[in-house]
Amino acid sequence: MSTKQKRFFLSEDEIPRKWYNIQADMVNKPMPPLNPVTKEALKPEDLFPVFAEELCRQELDQTNAWIDIPEEVRDMYKYYRSTPLVRAYGLEEALGTPAHIYFKNESVSPVGSHKLNSALAQAYYCKKQGVTNITTETGAGQWGAALSYAAKVFGLEAAVYQVKISYNQKPYRRSIMQTYGAQVTPSPSMSTKAGRKILTDDPNNQGSLGTAISEAIELAMSTPNCKYTLGSVLSHVTLHQTVIGLEAEKQMQMAGEYPDIVIGCFGGGSNFGGIAFPFMRHNILEGKKTRFIAAEPASCPKLTHGVFQYDFGDVAGYTPLLPMYTLGHNFMPANIHAGGLRYHGAGVIVSQLLKDKMMEAVDIKQLESFEAGTLFAKAEGIIPAPESCHAIAAAINEAKKCKETGEEKVILFNLSGHGLIDMAAYDQYLSGSLQNYEFTDEDVAENLKKIEKYV
Amino acid sequence: MSTKQKRFFLSEDEIPRKWYNIQADMVNKPMPPLNPVTKEALKPEDLFPVFAEELCRQELDQTNAWIDIPEEVRDMYKYYRSTPLVRAYGLEEALGTPAHIYFKNESVSPVGSHKLNSALAQAYYCKKQGVTNITTETGAGQWGAALSYAAKVFGLEAAVYQVKISYNQKPYRRSIMQTYGAQVTPSPSMSTKAGRKILTDDPNNQGSLGTAISEAIELAMSTPNCKYTLGSVLSHVTLHQTVIGLEAEKQMQMAGEYPDIVIGCFGGGSNFGGIAFPFMRHNILEGKKTRFIAAEPASCPKLTHGVFQYDFGDVAGYTPLLPMYTLGHNFMPANIHAGGLRYHGAGVIVSQLLKDKMMEAVDIKQLESFEAGTLFAKAEGIIPAPESCHAIAAAINEAKKCKETGEEKVILFNLSGHGLIDMAAYDQYLSGSLQNYEFTDEDVAENLKKIEKYV
Repeated sequence: MSTKQKRFFLSEDEIPRKWYNIQADMVNKPMPPLNPVTKEALKPEDLFPVFAEELCRQELDQTNAWIDIPEEVRDMYKYYRSTPLVRAYGLEEALGTPAHIYFKNESVSPVGSHKLNSALAQAYYCKKQGVTNITTETGAGQWGAALSYAAKVFGLEAAVYQVKISYNQKPYRRSIMQTYGAQVTPSPSMSTKAGRKILTDDPNNQGSLGTAISEAIELAMSTPNCKYTLGSVLSHVTLHQTVIGLEAEKQMQMAGEYPDIVIGCFGGGSNFGGIAFPFMRHNILEGKKTRFIAAEPASCPKLTHGVFQYDFGDVAGYTPLLPMYTLGHNFMPANIHAGGLRYHGAGVIVSQLLKDKMMEAVDIKQLESFEAGTLFAKAEGIIPAPESCHAIAAAINEAKKCKETGEEKVILFNLSGHGLIDMAAYDQYLSGSLQNYEFTDEDVAENLKKIEKYV
Repeated sequence: MSTKQKRFFLSEDEIPRKWYNIQADMVNKPMPPLNPVTKEALKPEDLFPVFAEELCRQELDQTNAWIDIPEEVRDMYKYYRSTPLVRAYGLEEALGTPAHIYFKNESVSPVGSHKLNSALAQAYYCKKQGVTNITTETGAGQWGAALSYAAKVFGLEAAVYQVKISYNQKPYRRSIMQTYGAQVTPSPSMSTKAGRKILTDDPNNQGSLGTAISEAIELAMSTPNCKYTLGSVLSHVTLHQTVIGLEAEKQMQMAGEYPDIVIGCFGGGSNFGGIAFPFMRHNILEGKKTRFIAAEPASCPKLTHGVFQYDFGDVAGYTPLLPMYTLGHNFMPANIHAGGLRYHGAGVIVSQLLKDKMMEAVDIKQLESFEAGTLFAKAEGIIPAPESCHAIAAAINEAKKCKETGEEKVILFNLSGHGLIDMAAYDQYLSGSLQNYEFTDEDVAENLKKIEKYV
């Protein structure tokens, strides 16, 4: 306990007016996505059939460092932003560390996670373009909930494909999406060609983000006036999430500190990039030495054990070829509770940055993640999402190193969401029935053998 | 959507330093609680065996209008307070009402409800007095979660009796309490005399708050160095909750408005009193004309259909006799999802204020409450607790009246908690399987016949 200030907020006027596009400042730009047939570099127009046009332009923009946040989107941000920057005195005390630990609490968004930051932007651009229906996929359900609400805000109909294992493990998330008025289908389903193919081969298939993406894209492309939206991986999604780091930058100033280490959990990269890129800008432009750590599950370790190559973003091969760290688009993840981290590839920006050693990655086992999450819950009161537990575990590991060395490092991590819908996972952890899964270098090599090398 | 300011916050320095004790300002003071054997008015010392001593003094304090918030408690408040005061532009638009609707969002507390405001205070006073173990009961689980975390904060062991139907309907709440390190027992249980008696008579008894209170008190009184804590009904609990209304008062000033109507849902009275009493002070002292509306379920309507008389606070008759509106301490509530509102009596302060027509009460049917909650979720993004849905329904009814009359009334309600643990209830509502329950004047008369009249 400390009598010093614990939480830092911005006024509505101080909420950022622009997102930060790190592509413009990167020394080595990401390599272009390729048309899978012609192998030619993609132009924004090539993506128009799938996404809202403005999102396609943002996706491939390597020139403009600052993108205006539309007033309609910023106005909706005001309902939950700025999110608090919190000094984690309770966690510091529990660890006995000299480190100063801060977290950005995105769990206070109405839908319980950072996902709303991009959902509102994507729904807005669709609406502006005259789109009436949007589709998407969701794993843990955080993105699906955010998109369902964002669709409601801008008067759009939403159809969500939810990974089947999450649909069954987390019925509450389905109910949340339905309460917002969305149509929710477990994936793989019989409603698409991609789903029917998978179910024919494997009737008990429990689904994956890659499969659900194939289904949602197929529905969007076969439905008039309908666009697809994605909750992570793509560069425009990460762009929208930079509002997290831009706020945190101002809030850290209010706290009179600057982070030595910035940490985010890692699924496709949007929450990690969201908090990291605004600070990484100062590494690139001013030579700051902040370390950036992406924390991924040991069962889905594309950054720590994957291979950098061109691969599809989905199972069926509907997406462009993306230059990324990947486990292979045919990767079927273990049934860990951090459903939002069960994706085979990393976004192209993060992949390039990792290749260029601008950032680091660590893999965290499932039991370690819940041990960290439970310690955090007791120390700070907030029950973290299983995904966020990975960031907490990485932050705890760094704070423990500070305890050994006596260094007062400043550690900032993103609490991407709360775990109130994931209590069944905590129940399993507390009762000792949760297990670890690992995907090794050998597993990766084995898996990649089964798919073509495209470039 | 509006570009005007949506949320109002206080700085940590502006968080109240004192709670407001309306008993000191009431024209007609509440009648005293009585010793059930001697029928003599209770003194604080009489309550010492059950509660921390400072809480006993607060309970019966009819003199001091302002009670210092201990620095240790206020310091913990800073982790989530001030909670936002939100202008509900989305709801206003959905209703097409000229009313200005505001809500105080207590759902952003780490445990998801207002309950933490008193849990921290009660755990602190127990700790200060050298107590090592605390017991309590919980219905929906909101209070149990808050107390479990507060116990952890101040290094106490917590034992929670959870009403059996909630224990079974809401396993997530149990997991939350266990994640914080509490011991949770479904009530009625075989671990107490009170529980064994009920289970012997009725092996399928699904429990009630009254029964769980009996069990928790019995455990506290038979365990060394152990005190009981309560989440509502009692005057000291409502005292701690006035931090809500005191903040809201300053935040409404920031918004440049003053409420014409203040609304809270009603179980025992603490969240209602918490938001209402600081404003009611101005009615008492300055002749303001704000209306105060307690919204209770039609299935448990002590304020709208109960009788004002001395009655026990629990089923077994362990508590003092309290002068209150009651349905009879033998009342067994219907299985509505708003578990926190399933209590047979109203706190003594609210009972006196209602008798004196200083406030009003309305009863809301279950389906109406979820209709209101679903509309609110779509309009404001936050899924409200089933309890809070009652306050929302009452606010919507008042806003609709404004639509008819064209009046621009200022309506303020307390959003006591979120409903993310209650999605099963929303699921039932959306699928049409939820039903209404009513408890009529005749039911009340019939029920009261079965118990003694004590005074």
